[in-house]
Amino acid sequence: MTEGGSQAAARALDARDPLAAFRAAFVVDDPDLLYLDGNSLGRMPRAAAARVRTTLEEEWGRRLIRGWGEGWFTLGRRLGGKIARCIGAQPDEVIVCDSTTVDLFKLVVAALRARPGRRTIVTDALNFPSDHYVLQGVIELLGQGHRLVVVPAVDGVTVPESQLTAVVDDGTALVTLSHAAFRSAFVHDLARVTALAHQAGAIVLWDLSHSVGAMPIDLGTAGADLAVGCTYKYLCGGPGAPAFLYVRRDLQERLVNPIWGWFGRRDQFNFDGDWAPGPGIQRFLVGTPPVLSTAAVEAGVDLVLEAGLDGIRAKSVAQTEYLIGLWEAWLAPLGFSLNSPRDAPHRGSHVSLGHPDGLRIDRALIEDMRVLPDFRYPDNIRFGLVPLYTTFTEIHEAMLRLRRVVVDRLHEKYPRERLAIT
Amino acid sequence: MTEGGSQAAARALDARDPLAAFRAAFVVDDPDLLYLDGNSLGRMPRAAAARVRTTLEEEWGRRLIRGWGEGWFTLGRRLGGKIARCIGAQPDEVIVCDSTTVDLFKLVVAALRARPGRRTIVTDALNFPSDHYVLQGVIELLGQGHRLVVVPAVDGVTVPESQLTAVVDDGTALVTLSHAAFRSAFVHDLARVTALAHQAGAIVLWDLSHSVGAMPIDLGTAGADLAVGCTYKYLCGGPGAPAFLYVRRDLQERLVNPIWGWFGRRDQFNFDGDWAPGPGIQRFLVGTPPVLSTAAVEAGVDLVLEAGLDGIRAKSVAQTEYLIGLWEAWLAPLGFSLNSPRDAPHRGSHVSLGHPDGLRIDRALIEDMRVLPDFRYPDNIRFGLVPLYTTFTEIHEAMLRLRRVVVDRLHEKYPRERLAIT
Repeated sequence: MTEGGSQAAARALDARDPLAAFRAAFVVDDPDLLYLDGNSLGRMPRAAAARVRTTLEEEWGRRLIRGWGEGWFTLGRRLGGKIARCIGAQPDEVIVCDSTTVDLFKLVVAALRARPGRRTIVTDALNFPSDHYVLQGVIELLGQGHRLVVVPAVDGVTVPESQLTAVVDDGTALVTLSHAAFRSAFVHDLARVTALAHQAGAIVLWDLSHSVGAMPIDLGTAGADLAVGCTYKYLCGGPGAPAFLYVRRDLQERLVNPIWGWFGRRDQFNFDGDWAPGPGIQRFLVGTPPVLSTAAVEAGVDLVLEAGLDGIRAKSVAQTEYLIGLWEAWLAPLGFSLNSPRDAPHRGSHVSLGHPDGLRIDRALIEDMRVLPDFRYPDNIRFGLVPLYTTFTEIHEAMLRLRRVVVDRLHEKYPRERLAIT
Repeated sequence: MTEGGSQAAARALDARDPLAAFRAAFVVDDPDLLYLDGNSLGRMPRAAAARVRTTLEEEWGRRLIRGWGEGWFTLGRRLGGKIARCIGAQPDEVIVCDSTTVDLFKLVVAALRARPGRRTIVTDALNFPSDHYVLQGVIELLGQGHRLVVVPAVDGVTVPESQLTAVVDDGTALVTLSHAAFRSAFVHDLARVTALAHQAGAIVLWDLSHSVGAMPIDLGTAGADLAVGCTYKYLCGGPGAPAFLYVRRDLQERLVNPIWGWFGRRDQFNFDGDWAPGPGIQRFLVGTPPVLSTAAVEAGVDLVLEAGLDGIRAKSVAQTEYLIGLWEAWLAPLGFSLNSPRDAPHRGSHVSLGHPDGLRIDRALIEDMRVLPDFRYPDNIRFGLVPLYTTFTEIHEAMLRLRRVVVDRLHEKYPRERLAIT
């Protein structure tokens, strides 16, 4: 890695990047700031800001309550139809609403109640903590003796499929996993895991938060049952933008949303009588959706669809490979471990590097080096690469700065303790 | 009502309105459009639009992920502290999060589990339909034989306290009511109903959606246990803006949020171990909050606090009285009924007028007359008066136009059937 590690080589890669033009669709006001945390919060598409301004000034400000009839009511469904194209679903199988965790809660309860004779829930240690918490809470809430089986991870990085096969059986009600793991970026084989769960008669619920918008996903061909996902990472929907949920069409009428609200009710504005589920995916709605935050989601989804997920994935793989190459040449000798899978098919669009001083190094990157990665305990510095706007030059420069932090011991002035965020 | 019903009289009332200056804080680009639906969606404060633009351009666009540490994490709590001043609560007893219906779900489940030996839930027929649905759903979900007692309403307008006293007993786990009723605007005596519920050992949960920001509320003096409320009506927080929930301080550590998510967890970013409730009100959070929609809430709350709830209530009562006077003089003879309480202490800030042709009249008001009220089945035209921006002149002109619709039979060209909204 002498020639390959040069800035000229990075520039050459950018020069022949077929997606390079997409970067101009995002606000990048400070090119020296190396933003590599798109897997926590994607950059702002210019069109998202414009759309929210329209929602403020034209819709809320001028159309007032008429905004509901003029698009707000159908916004979540319309966006769901677009996100469906990112995940191999039908347009009427996806809807944008609530937070990922609330959506998970709804679907986990619905799934368990659809398998009343079964008492096991299978997940893995790589799943996002909030997903684990939802499962723990639902077990406690239902009080029916469900048991949570957490398949351990090898070195905290991967979960071999054989480990899942070993525990999924005819007592398994639900298999629920993150498609791409938040910390290591390990990617499950969605179709194979779905098939092994189905073979045992279990329902599968995928959390697509760390994969949607970063790679092709085909829930339809896999026959997956349920999914949720986040819109503020690779879909660039804005801070805390509402999540989406997916329910396979033939399951929609067989599952019951446990939170009965007016937006999920049949004939919402006929206030006579009791709750009854609305048609199709609508029954999984609950209350009034946050319109401004929902409106911001569309622009990023449009850009993903325009770029195409095959192209996005090709660039993502090239960029994570490139970063891993620089790690190997410059950072492994300095004590950094690669905490993401080496094999591209099982790796998402971020790379985790571990270091015993990871927390302080992360802080030095942010405060001294104008690099914004993310940190995940205990020692992972995550570099999120978003093919729509991340350049090879940025990756090159970020790894140079990371090397400089450790070589010059810039991190040693910071305390070893974690700062409280709130 | 000849002199009192003149436009000059309305103008005179506006001229001596101490809150008149607040109207300039809102976007009113088309004064001929008579917007009387603030009880569904409040007008946009200019400062709300400015704040969201800042959140877009400065925060998301430039500060990126750092926005979380620079205010987004604490936004819901900070806004909760301001809303607390509108409802007689302590700053650490209120937090903004999720939708009203999701918040209701969390608190209803928590309340029922805190009264394990009791099986009755008391509400009334005036409560908002989504509140009824939540109760029905929770009963079904818990499967513990809870029973819902719905106290009927007299003429669809009021619920005498004696009717509640008659059904609340030592089998009552929860009494949950809308403080101000969405259709009739009937207002319960919050302190007295809280006391009668507490006398029976029941928990009280108030839905403040139709009263918060329109009148003084004193949960603290009443000793109320729980509350939820909407921010997009009289608080003018924007379409679908997140709701707030209130949990009395001494109850916070005794109640369990049934949806376990990372935002409600103790030590959110320490991903080791199981879910454990966070400190105080934070434990009632679930997932990532929709930042743009939450940021929009603050401006309206600030205006309410600046105007003061005593002054807001005084103007609100004067305006509903004024509208009722015009109804009596002009509309009662044309077959309109008053479907709101006549006595001001039991009336909120909207007035419902009923008419057998209500649906078609509502449509004619909107399409031919540039009046925007709201309609609620079966026959209620609701006029929501928001003291921060509604003028007496607007009310006068709207009632004139309403009279003209019926006198000139403008509504008769519309079908009797309801249009589907979605």
